[in-house]
Amino acid sequence: MEFFELKPVEEARSLLLAAAKGLPVQAEVVPLDQALGRVVAEPIRSTSDLPPFNRSSVDGFAVKAADTFGASEGLPAYLRVTGEILMGQAPTLPLGPGEAQKIATGGALPHGADAVVMVEHTESMADDEIGAVRPVSPGENVMYQGEDCKAGDVLMPAGQVIRAQELAILSHAGITQVSVIRQPRVAIISTGDELVPADREPGPGQIRESNGAAMTALVRRDGGIPTYLGLAADREQEIASLLQRGLDYDLILISGGSSVGTRDMTSILIDRLGRPGTLVHGVKLKPGKPTILAMADGTPVVGLPGHPVSAQVVYGLFVQPLLRQMQGLPAEPEFEPKVRARLTKNIASATGRTDAVRVRLFRQDGEIWAEPVHGKSGLISTLVKADGLIIIPSAREGLLAGQEVEVELLV
Amino acid sequence: MEFFELKPVEEARSLLLAAAKGLPVQAEVVPLDQALGRVVAEPIRSTSDLPPFNRSSVDGFAVKAADTFGASEGLPAYLRVTGEILMGQAPTLPLGPGEAQKIATGGALPHGADAVVMVEHTESMADDEIGAVRPVSPGENVMYQGEDCKAGDVLMPAGQVIRAQELAILSHAGITQVSVIRQPRVAIISTGDELVPADREPGPGQIRESNGAAMTALVRRDGGIPTYLGLAADREQEIASLLQRGLDYDLILISGGSSVGTRDMTSILIDRLGRPGTLVHGVKLKPGKPTILAMADGTPVVGLPGHPVSAQVVYGLFVQPLLRQMQGLPAEPEFEPKVRARLTKNIASATGRTDAVRVRLFRQDGEIWAEPVHGKSGLISTLVKADGLIIIPSAREGLLAGQEVEVELLV
Repeated sequence: MEFFELKPVEEARSLLLAAAKGLPVQAEVVPLDQALGRVVAEPIRSTSDLPPFNRSSVDGFAVKAADTFGASEGLPAYLRVTGEILMGQAPTLPLGPGEAQKIATGGALPHGADAVVMVEHTESMADDEIGAVRPVSPGENVMYQGEDCKAGDVLMPAGQVIRAQELAILSHAGITQVSVIRQPRVAIISTGDELVPADREPGPGQIRESNGAAMTALVRRDGGIPTYLGLAADREQEIASLLQRGLDYDLILISGGSSVGTRDMTSILIDRLGRPGTLVHGVKLKPGKPTILAMADGTPVVGLPGHPVSAQVVYGLFVQPLLRQMQGLPAEPEFEPKVRARLTKNIASATGRTDAVRVRLFRQDGEIWAEPVHGKSGLISTLVKADGLIIIPSAREGLLAGQEVEVELLV
Repeated sequence: MEFFELKPVEEARSLLLAAAKGLPVQAEVVPLDQALGRVVAEPIRSTSDLPPFNRSSVDGFAVKAADTFGASEGLPAYLRVTGEILMGQAPTLPLGPGEAQKIATGGALPHGADAVVMVEHTESMADDEIGAVRPVSPGENVMYQGEDCKAGDVLMPAGQVIRAQELAILSHAGITQVSVIRQPRVAIISTGDELVPADREPGPGQIRESNGAAMTALVRRDGGIPTYLGLAADREQEIASLLQRGLDYDLILISGGSSVGTRDMTSILIDRLGRPGTLVHGVKLKPGKPTILAMADGTPVVGLPGHPVSAQVVYGLFVQPLLRQMQGLPAEPEFEPKVRARLTKNIASATGRTDAVRVRLFRQDGEIWAEPVHGKSGLISTLVKADGLIIIPSAREGLLAGQEVEVELLV
């Protein structure tokens, strides 16, 4: 007797992502110091040339490049030093043929100069004369006006994640606030008659709730704004009431309710929340089979298994891509860094089922090895011991000892 | 004429990390909801067995395993159902031979039971009878009391980073606050006569400051608490005054001052701050040569080049490992996820020099390719276009087109 019509992970995820397409992806304007990691909502253009003038990229002497052609250690090009460019000021004196002006990194090139000779490549002849011992070509050691970005050009397109360098160029361009995709607000609910909050002493047959803290942390890490709505006992009224409050958020995560009766009840209550209701009830995933994916009137709902390991695996396979999509990013990162390791032992996996294998990493003989961490999916300590996960997709039949695998670090 | 006695990157980093050893690594107690990403300061022990009683890990029937031996579809083991375990309550009725009690995932095993038959592997015979169609071995589908952690055992060692699963097990153990390494407080200073703050209109010869925003973001990402002390003109008094204020923090980052006179001045002013002063002035690194590494009376000081690309490269090679060490972590992560890609073209690199090459990634014919992004290190747009960096260590002489390389994503 099987409870679910189990769906393959890939199909289940596609159904969820398709149903949530376009949700909510709204923009808001934030100051730069709150913009790190956010996603640009609309193309940002520069209003001025960057840099705003021709700048030297080295310490040295502004020159006409042609005056240095053929210069060498044996036969320096002698140039008359007619002045020094002061930093942060416009140069006043134009540069004539056979002349040089002292300039520091970042200084503005004087009119008539088209290159800079590095100070390392000059000899001091007299107070007002230098010898250039190497030639420079036109433009050498110069950052041209507008070379970083021209006025009106797109500094960054919509969909770009704001990293340190994006903050730098926005500052450089004088853009102090930016329109970014709003962070999805995520309601987190735990259910289970046996659960008490972490700060309470459990009675006989009770344990402290742990998924709330884990899900809160993961949602925050992935750019969402988590709100823990609390703990519901396995009673229709309690669960329905928390689910109803969840509709005020952009996404509902409800964990637990994994006992037979409760699982059915959760699914029925989600269906009552709004249409189309449950999309998937049960996935071909180990651990993580009793997963519910639903859409209630524009609010996605993910029912996570109560077992902590399963909950975190299901989070990674379904919730993380969904949160990325809800922030205007591709559901899967285009280039995902992984650790490559060799397996210490064979891992069996049924075809058609996706397996998430906890592994501990270690180095031996100059190689990285991945050692499966066995243990029931209800044991959190197995995840504490694990450095990462190996995901065996449904098309694979297992992995062999010694085989190279890609490990997703648990961070 | 060369300004610096340049040190190889590896040697320079070792000097800095050795000088900063033991700094500051102090502990503080934080509630769990502020503990994500922090480093455990002292071993954390559980005060009770986890789980606190034998629990079922599936929905099914608690049994004596021996009663099911030899059971099959053709010849089920018939068991009398004597009760149901209520969730969150201690079982009252012991289990006798030939008996079963209905139990849900997470339920407490009754006295006398040593295994659980999954409900999927039973047939309902009558109201008070089931047939088990598969045998279970003792312990099967049971999480034993203390299997996650025994009372008094170490839940996590000092130095462990707190991830979602550590929050879960701490919650499970009823530990609601935790002693973690204090976050290093980092003073950030920018210098340069040509610079104006990002919210000001630059005059002729001036540009807006951009390193402050980038460094603030990177320090925050890496677990530090950044404070931007502001912008100093290239005048001894202004720089000295900001450096002095920096001594109230755990680490000082000062960028700019890359013009010849200023560079020397910055180094001299750092030397005056405290002993031993400058450890390294100039590294064999491209871009990033004019780097200063110093220790002033117990406060590390890193002088970053003013060019934005150089500043970010130097941050990654020196500041990031230092911040890790100051949080009680190994300076380099033991297992660092990377993206593997093929190079589109040859890259030259002088032996003895470390090169940081900006690359853009793209997919073609099922492979990931890394295309070098050329451009002066003063052009921030080159970093905006880049997905990652390839670090060519000093011992390498360059890389060949088509070669597989490891790319560190810029995040």
